[in-house]
Amino acid sequence: MIARHLSIVGIGLIGGSLARALRAADEVETISAWDQDAEQLKRALELNVIDHAATDPISAVAGAEIIVLSVPVLETASVLGMIRPGLSGEAVVTDVGSTKSSVVDSIRAQFGSVPPMFVPGHPIAGTEKNGVAASIASLFEGRCVILTPHAEMDEKAAHRIEQMWKAVGATVERMSPEQHDEVLAATSHLPHLLAYTLVESLNRLQPCPELFKYAAGGFRDFTRIAGSSPRMWHDILMANRDSIIPLVDQYIATLASIREAVAAGDRDDVLKFLQRARDARARFVIPDRHDRLASSNRPLS
Amino acid sequence: MIARHLSIVGIGLIGGSLARALRAADEVETISAWDQDAEQLKRALELNVIDHAATDPISAVAGAEIIVLSVPVLETASVLGMIRPGLSGEAVVTDVGSTKSSVVDSIRAQFGSVPPMFVPGHPIAGTEKNGVAASIASLFEGRCVILTPHAEMDEKAAHRIEQMWKAVGATVERMSPEQHDEVLAATSHLPHLLAYTLVESLNRLQPCPELFKYAAGGFRDFTRIAGSSPRMWHDILMANRDSIIPLVDQYIATLASIREAVAAGDRDDVLKFLQRARDARARFVIPDRHDRLASSNRPLS
Repeated sequence: MIARHLSIVGIGLIGGSLARALRAADEVETISAWDQDAEQLKRALELNVIDHAATDPISAVAGAEIIVLSVPVLETASVLGMIRPGLSGEAVVTDVGSTKSSVVDSIRAQFGSVPPMFVPGHPIAGTEKNGVAASIASLFEGRCVILTPHAEMDEKAAHRIEQMWKAVGATVERMSPEQHDEVLAATSHLPHLLAYTLVESLNRLQPCPELFKYAAGGFRDFTRIAGSSPRMWHDILMANRDSIIPLVDQYIATLASIREAVAAGDRDDVLKFLQRARDARARFVIPDRHDRLASSNRPLS
Repeated sequence: MIARHLSIVGIGLIGGSLARALRAADEVETISAWDQDAEQLKRALELNVIDHAATDPISAVAGAEIIVLSVPVLETASVLGMIRPGLSGEAVVTDVGSTKSSVVDSIRAQFGSVPPMFVPGHPIAGTEKNGVAASIASLFEGRCVILTPHAEMDEKAAHRIEQMWKAVGATVERMSPEQHDEVLAATSHLPHLLAYTLVESLNRLQPCPELFKYAAGGFRDFTRIAGSSPRMWHDILMANRDSIIPLVDQYIATLASIREAVAAGDRDDVLKFLQRARDARARFVIPDRHDRLASSNRPLS
């Protein structure tokens, strides 16, 4: 058993899925939760995702051996400050935020140092849906969780969080917060920004439903991630902008170059550009079970 | 029965899927095909997708009541010229190209006028896979096929093509070639170009597999369409660049504006941008069965 009592602060898609998975695997005895959105908390109790809905963050973490913070990344440090008075002596705290340098830095700024029992983490999993009602026990199966150790971190605390993620089917890797933020900026944050921008760009140009009526799988796939939570993504863009902005600049430069080639009718250049991109994707992206499932019959163009 | 004898010139994903679907629905007696790629043609025969592999385009269309051209859009007019000597008197010819003005214009340029029996069409369906081995009978079920009538078109010919597509489960709509090209530029051609550009941009910046190892569903979904045929997309970008270039310019301007807001830390502007985009997608994109299937458990961030 990973923990007798576990507490989740912020019970949405990720927190809810972790709770479901740990209960399904019989890895916890009781789970309590708190959320600033009373509706979400009520729903989590109704859905039997948690055992106890706390009335405030301090009572939510009382007696918990593991506390999972599942809140927008710009709020992580202040939420940690809120729960700190209620933590038991051996409590281990982790988070699930999509940026890591900002989380570690803001905690260090607030507390003077990062508490040894805080283990920064990020499960590379999710859907574009939000809220505890969308949570599923299998969300982390076969997924990668990245832990980003800091200088003060207690190795025993990190090991415990590692065991928690392995218990729900994830593999766990470690890297520095900086490396995490660079990798995720490229593979997640930039694509999300581009998807939001596509919808907004078309909406500015021609805000009519007629246009979108003919959007098939390609457009749907491409923009699905633009259905994600604006508040969550606002925080991610703000928190990781130092990594994201250079990638956006590189993207604009690359797009401008292919735009020029298309406009000039440079057929060779256009073909080579498309071939290079196709080959790079084929070389680098290892298909996973979700990929195979999705591509088996995905209408596109 | 839609046709006793049907001929497919270019037997890849789309042509192969149409052949499978018509055979499954018992809507044709025999299907012959030709492809400039001898391997594809042989594979189509082995897979029992077609009855007869022709040795040249003229013999492929001999005796066929319906001929489907499934070739890159820049080749459509010349392929029509190749098969024309072999067409029977009552033959109806359609194509499946993703651009329509260029196809109609190039045919008019080549023949002086568009033959009345030519019905320009575009099934909004496909996957990022290529080749007849990837073809599936259900590809067009619930999908939309757009026909783009021209001034000379024979209504009886158009009706016959309409019936063919309905027989394989598609709905058929009509619009002008110009409207088709504008709509598809926004909902298909631009997203494909953006996906290719993302892979190429990251590849230019950091051509290492390590980066892509952590790419989860969001990146996969977003770039899946960059696995499509470079040759096919080269033709589409070239053929429809008049519609695509203004959209690229609008996209770059929109991306530059949100880049500025992120860089400047304009939290309100960033949040509003993301909310507008999310709301526009929710308003305009009607979920279909593929969307629901794909989003039920798609790991993203």
